[in-house]
Amino acid sequence: MTPEKKRTELRELGEFRLIEHLTQNAIPINSSTIKGVGDDAAIISPEGKRMVVTTDLLLEGIHFDLVYTPFKHLGYKAVVVNLSDVYAMNAKPKQVTVSIGVSAKLCLEDLDELYEGIYLACRHYGVDLVGGDSSSSLTGLTISVTAIGEVADEKIAYRSGAKLNDLICVTGNLGAAFMGIQLLEREKRVLKGVTGAKPQLDGYSYLLERFLKPEARKEIVEKLDEFGIVPTSMIDISDGLSSEMMHICKNSEVGCRIYLEKIPINEQTFRLAEEMNLDAFVAALNGGEDYELLFTVPIGLHEKIDEIEGVKVIGHITEQDKGVYMVTPDGNEIALTAQGWNAIKGE
Amino acid sequence: MTPEKKRTELRELGEFRLIEHLTQNAIPINSSTIKGVGDDAAIISPEGKRMVVTTDLLLEGIHFDLVYTPFKHLGYKAVVVNLSDVYAMNAKPKQVTVSIGVSAKLCLEDLDELYEGIYLACRHYGVDLVGGDSSSSLTGLTISVTAIGEVADEKIAYRSGAKLNDLICVTGNLGAAFMGIQLLEREKRVLKGVTGAKPQLDGYSYLLERFLKPEARKEIVEKLDEFGIVPTSMIDISDGLSSEMMHICKNSEVGCRIYLEKIPINEQTFRLAEEMNLDAFVAALNGGEDYELLFTVPIGLHEKIDEIEGVKVIGHITEQDKGVYMVTPDGNEIALTAQGWNAIKGE
Repeated sequence: MTPEKKRTELRELGEFRLIEHLTQNAIPINSSTIKGVGDDAAIISPEGKRMVVTTDLLLEGIHFDLVYTPFKHLGYKAVVVNLSDVYAMNAKPKQVTVSIGVSAKLCLEDLDELYEGIYLACRHYGVDLVGGDSSSSLTGLTISVTAIGEVADEKIAYRSGAKLNDLICVTGNLGAAFMGIQLLEREKRVLKGVTGAKPQLDGYSYLLERFLKPEARKEIVEKLDEFGIVPTSMIDISDGLSSEMMHICKNSEVGCRIYLEKIPINEQTFRLAEEMNLDAFVAALNGGEDYELLFTVPIGLHEKIDEIEGVKVIGHITEQDKGVYMVTPDGNEIALTAQGWNAIKGE
Repeated sequence: MTPEKKRTELRELGEFRLIEHLTQNAIPINSSTIKGVGDDAAIISPEGKRMVVTTDLLLEGIHFDLVYTPFKHLGYKAVVVNLSDVYAMNAKPKQVTVSIGVSAKLCLEDLDELYEGIYLACRHYGVDLVGGDSSSSLTGLTISVTAIGEVADEKIAYRSGAKLNDLICVTGNLGAAFMGIQLLEREKRVLKGVTGAKPQLDGYSYLLERFLKPEARKEIVEKLDEFGIVPTSMIDISDGLSSEMMHICKNSEVGCRIYLEKIPINEQTFRLAEEMNLDAFVAALNGGEDYELLFTVPIGLHEKIDEIEGVKVIGHITEQDKGVYMVTPDGNEIALTAQGWNAIKGE
């Protein structure tokens, strides 16, 4: 925060005027949004589709650090991580609600930036902000988002539908967000107490973006739809590939083989991992916050899947008693463990 | 917390096992709940109805004080305050999601009590717990609930439909919850630093219950439906009668006259107000947290409304330029102000 920045204290407004101010741009664009902000509840017309509902809580000091997280990015990310869960059901997000608990250290201009990011994500993904709640908080900033989407019944992709011999597919690349936060944390440590110094982030802008302003894989779900493909199972990668693969195998009562060398990893991820003496594959397997999609399709769709840009086949589904394993290039099999990103253990 | 109480630290479980543990009893009962807890999102089939969505954030130190709030009551209330918003649309709640941020001072047994209250409310109101999120919190307990309901399009009651000469109706009685918290805060102050002493709460159990374990007015919405009445406007009273009446008048572009002596107030509310040198009518007008319903109906329904137990006519709708006024028994007109309960100003 630069000293020149205007600072309007929240207590000057009060709750009702704050809500009015923050939601004045919340004009619904989706035909399924019958009534958005401004009543006891929003009204949605599902138009014959199934509704998908998911929610995530973001807490200051646990999920984000305001030292290196711009408010606009934070608002964008808070929406995106929820939309990612909607896409993971093979559904299209249509509405979000956003609740915030705000400590006295924040001013109206901070919240304006936060909501700029929220609205930007809404526009980019075509969703309506239809409700929420705001309150003061005695402590840190709290953000709770609920996302609502729609999907035809026959297109829902649960975690539980993976079948023997299905191909295991992953979108984009993994481990970049984890390396992004490693970099930010390193620079925070280095610069602690040093005034005027600037963090050394050159050459890793992709990693920072992956952590600070992730995207949900809208275009993949649209492409699958266009190709007439319904994944037999799907999940979004928020806790690392290992953990998500185990969820699919457990829920589908199957095993799997993932091939280590097939896991897609970005060049910057490899480079920073080497610089920091970390293992890029561990970042991909256990890092989390990638918000890529992990899904399975019948083996007969191999050629079709190869045509979709940004999707890579990394393994296949086995019988359950074969276990959940990763295969290294030299043929060793290593059992996957759900280390994952664990908000409770990680305290 | 008594010293004998078993204490299981949350870090012993980790996030996934905690979620599994807390949601093991979340078995859907509503036919519209296609898939509840256990995937990236819940799936809901709206069965041709409109969907209603509302959300509320409850923060420790702002909305509740663990010094005098039992966890079970808190869980119950967190659900009920959201259901109240669903009923206020003349809709029936069907699903809730519950997200919690938990500080290290809480143990698993505390959360079990919290969820006991959550499940109790779900059973009582016939709603399914279909999802949520859990995380550690660096500070206090955070609870975010989203409630989803359904309603036929032609039965939705917005805030905006009140018409000239409509009757203004209110359910139950007002101001009791406000007096309940005054009592609890008084005893907290008196007992501060005093060990072994017990708070003096005798004779006011109704007030305590209204604050600690409020109910949403399910039976009123059912009764209105049974009588074929669709309110022209409706809102739930969470911020005091004044503030809610102003919301209806503003959204409906009308004015109103409310008769002071017709505002329903419980005997315990009057008694404690006198004891504490407070005004029971101020508690009713500005106290909040009553979770009663305030609604309007055409004047022709006067006799029908009189038949519904627990509903009282307190005034009528006027033209907008007549303003939003309360009439005292001696005929004075006092403009209502939206003092309300204000979570942002109240810090």
